[in-house]
Amino acid sequence: MKPFTIALCQNKPSYDKQKNMGRVLAMLDRAARRGARLVVFPEIVNYPYEFDLLKEKSSQDDNSLALLREQARSRKVFVCTGSLMEKRDGKIYNTSYLLDPQGEIILSYSKTHLFDVDLPALTAKESAVFSGGDGFSVVRCELGTIGLLICYDIRFPETARLLSLKGAELILVPAAFNTVTGPAHWDMTFRTRAVENQCFLAAVSPARNKKSAYRAYGHSLMIDPWGRVLARAGTGEKIIYARLDPRVLDETRARLPLLRHRREDLYKLTGNMDYSGL
Amino acid sequence: MKPFTIALCQNKPSYDKQKNMGRVLAMLDRAARRGARLVVFPEIVNYPYEFDLLKEKSSQDDNSLALLREQARSRKVFVCTGSLMEKRDGKIYNTSYLLDPQGEIILSYSKTHLFDVDLPALTAKESAVFSGGDGFSVVRCELGTIGLLICYDIRFPETARLLSLKGAELILVPAAFNTVTGPAHWDMTFRTRAVENQCFLAAVSPARNKKSAYRAYGHSLMIDPWGRVLARAGTGEKIIYARLDPRVLDETRARLPLLRHRREDLYKLTGNMDYSGL
Repeated sequence: MKPFTIALCQNKPSYDKQKNMGRVLAMLDRAARRGARLVVFPEIVNYPYEFDLLKEKSSQDDNSLALLREQARSRKVFVCTGSLMEKRDGKIYNTSYLLDPQGEIILSYSKTHLFDVDLPALTAKESAVFSGGDGFSVVRCELGTIGLLICYDIRFPETARLLSLKGAELILVPAAFNTVTGPAHWDMTFRTRAVENQCFLAAVSPARNKKSAYRAYGHSLMIDPWGRVLARAGTGEKIIYARLDPRVLDETRARLPLLRHRREDLYKLTGNMDYSGL
Repeated sequence: MKPFTIALCQNKPSYDKQKNMGRVLAMLDRAARRGARLVVFPEIVNYPYEFDLLKEKSSQDDNSLALLREQARSRKVFVCTGSLMEKRDGKIYNTSYLLDPQGEIILSYSKTHLFDVDLPALTAKESAVFSGGDGFSVVRCELGTIGLLICYDIRFPETARLLSLKGAELILVPAAFNTVTGPAHWDMTFRTRAVENQCFLAAVSPARNKKSAYRAYGHSLMIDPWGRVLARAGTGEKIIYARLDPRVLDETRARLPLLRHRREDLYKLTGNMDYSGL
């Protein structure tokens, strides 16, 4: 891993996809001008996270990925697109892409755990729209070894652990917790994943849109391997920046060697890690 | 699982083992009189958690377990002894026992992950004294299905997950975080484990002894499956109580079905779960 500046873009999606993408590209531009080498967007970057509406939108053509690739190439930065609706094999996936500064896709990941819950004041059935992905992967690039997860995935310790066992030094998690689960679990879950897997972790939420039926929690977080919050957003639209210092990762792993102390003789975690999504 | 009152005894061990055990038995008596059905003690219940001294003490006869068994039988309560030094096969283990109201050992567990760290202001090498245990287990009793872990084990998500996959509804964790790791990680780690494994979790620390070189964090916690803190101690000696309501467990598992949403088709965690320690 090498030292670099990461930008987490907590954008506020409206019901106008074209306008949203204009805003997203402008944020990407701003972050690149501020010196970010990697710019990360939230889950469903271009539309409010409302399943009924997303299902409607899924039949429309969508050039969001092409626009993001063009902008990554133009601004010469790494970009995690946040997630987009991906049509594949007659199904729809909640998919995130990691782009290099040439605009090439170097990693893609489709959300594997779908958010079907029945909470007080919040019912969701993501599986009515999306199919679950079928594997996990990381990529080694000039910034370091990077893995992707999406939102609800983070609640399952196996996901981040599999990425960590494959060498992840930074896990990017576009996410959209809400005003029920966010106050209860957002901070502690993401911070615990960073600590237990001894990696940097970016949790990137949309800003809260009070006109949307789905109230995103916001509070995007950049976390270091000791669980410290390096940068935090509020509920509004905001770009937050942090400098990632590999010495913190090396020192944490040396001083509190959790990965080395795993008892591989007593347990084993295996997973479908061959899937690159490309 | 059935509803019952649990007591977490955050005792303050001095350098006088006999006096400590008198105090422990008095706390057990008090908790039983207050209506607790299960009384839980911290890691190394009968002595300050200082490895050099523990090594010295290990050559001495120790009737702590016998005293606790007698008191459990006398007061007719379930007891988690917290951990004790156990001599077995020429080695020393950091072992915790679950006793039933007849004073019988129904589960034992030896700490599997040893705390060898080199933190600023805190160096520890538990492996210089203790050997690591060789498996995990849970027991089904009239209170519900209960698993045991000890302190540093909780940092490894595989441990609590294995217990959960075997049906654990309550995990008891005698522990002794310190003033370095406690403020950074204690709350979030234990609460995240309870949430992700959808179980009740008791984290029981010794009280802080300012005369000891090892400053225990204190702050014993009783946590419910939504991650709520039902009871919390400070740094001093204290018994905290909580009523465990199985409806909370059932409702959480039904509304946010994390255990059911695991993608067993994509990953698999296996472990040495046959070891009962008996």
